[in-house]
Amino acid sequence: MARTHTLHLDSKAREDARRRLLSIKGHVEGILRMLEDESVYCVDVLKQIKAVEGALDRVGDLVLRSHLKDHVVTAHERGDVEAIVEELMEVLKYR
Amino acid sequence: MARTHTLHLDSKAREDARRRLLSIKGHVEGILRMLEDESVYCVDVLKQIKAVEGALDRVGDLVLRSHLKDHVVTAHERGDVEAIVEELMEVLKYR
Amino acid sequence: MARTHTLHLDSKAREDARRRLLSIKGHVEGILRMLEDESVYCVDVLKQIKAVEGALDRVGDLVLRSHLKDHVVTAHERGDVEAIVEELMEVLKYR
Amino acid sequence: MARTHTLHLDSKAREDARRRLLSIKGHVEGILRMLEDESVYCVDVLKQIKAVEGALDRVGDLVLRSHLKDHVVTAHERGDVEAIVEELMEVLKYR
Repeated sequence: MARTHTLHLDSKAREDARRRLLSIKGHVEGILRMLEDESVYCVDVLKQIKAVEGALDRVGDLVLRSHLKDHVVTAHERGDVEAIVEELMEVLKYR
Repeated sequence: MARTHTLHLDSKAREDARRRLLSIKGHVEGILRMLEDESVYCVDVLKQIKAVEGALDRVGDLVLRSHLKDHVVTAHERGDVEAIVEELMEVLKYR
Repeated sequence: MARTHTLHLDSKAREDARRRLLSIKGHVEGILRMLEDESVYCVDVLKQIKAVEGALDRVGDLVLRSHLKDHVVTAHERGDVEAIVEELMEVLKYR
Repeated sequence: MARTHTLHLDSKAREDARRRLLSIKGHVEGILRMLEDESVYCVDVLKQIKAVEGALDRVGDLVLRSHLKDHVVTAHERGDVEAIVEELMEVLKYR
């Protein structure tokens, strides 16, 4: 996670991702509160987990779109096609 | 989320889910810190999002297993087969 | 696949699954024909693969619903809860 | 599907995809035969459907890798970044 890199996430996408992750954090806290109630119903918890996963998918999508636009489409010019493609295939696996 | 229900998440599963969600909350906070760094790399963010989704899948699995064991396998005796099955199919969709 | 079993797929669901799989087979043959064309575009192939996967998901859903209704909800009465639940969790993994 | 396009799937990837799809077609035919047996067990069908979906995912991966290497990494030079990225995001959705 701390590796330095010459390619950076676009600042607008970064801000958008932060804003959404703050909301996701609040959603996780909401599920934690649900779980304090000993009469909580399994399926209600499952629905909330699914909703959080959907919200995370949307963060992933915006970061991916930004990566494609800013770094993948220019890989041939930059000369790092192999590295960019393999790294992307890895992260898309089981998406 | 607030609907009262006679079927409750097993307390051991509930505790396990809480513990895991606390760790997931910490993981989300870690991504938020990553995103404060303006030199963060897109793919590093994508990997962390994927890791959180994997952790959420595991919480979902334990809640689902608990639901199956405690409520689904007894639906015929209880007489709510139709409701239990449709609700489960809905929550498994696009899983 | 050849293991004998006392629990059987409901005949209506079996017929529905067969009909859908015949159509899926035709769809796969359609992609095979697309791939004979040397000017085929990657994304057009990807879209067709995704469509076939969607159709397979729907077959899986109908078989799963049938299994839940006919076998899972009666597992407690039958006394094979552990086996039914573990088997189901396994097949739902990475769904 | 019939739209002409100046970007074509690489012939080696195309041949690999065809070979795999022929095997997938055989697998679908195998499930069709399973479904002729009225004592077939639901979970055995679900496992086979999942196996076919896994095989389709692998075809999708090879076509995607080929598309990334041959067309996406050169989009900036070609000047169709917007179209290439949106099309790719669409096809990756719910992957």
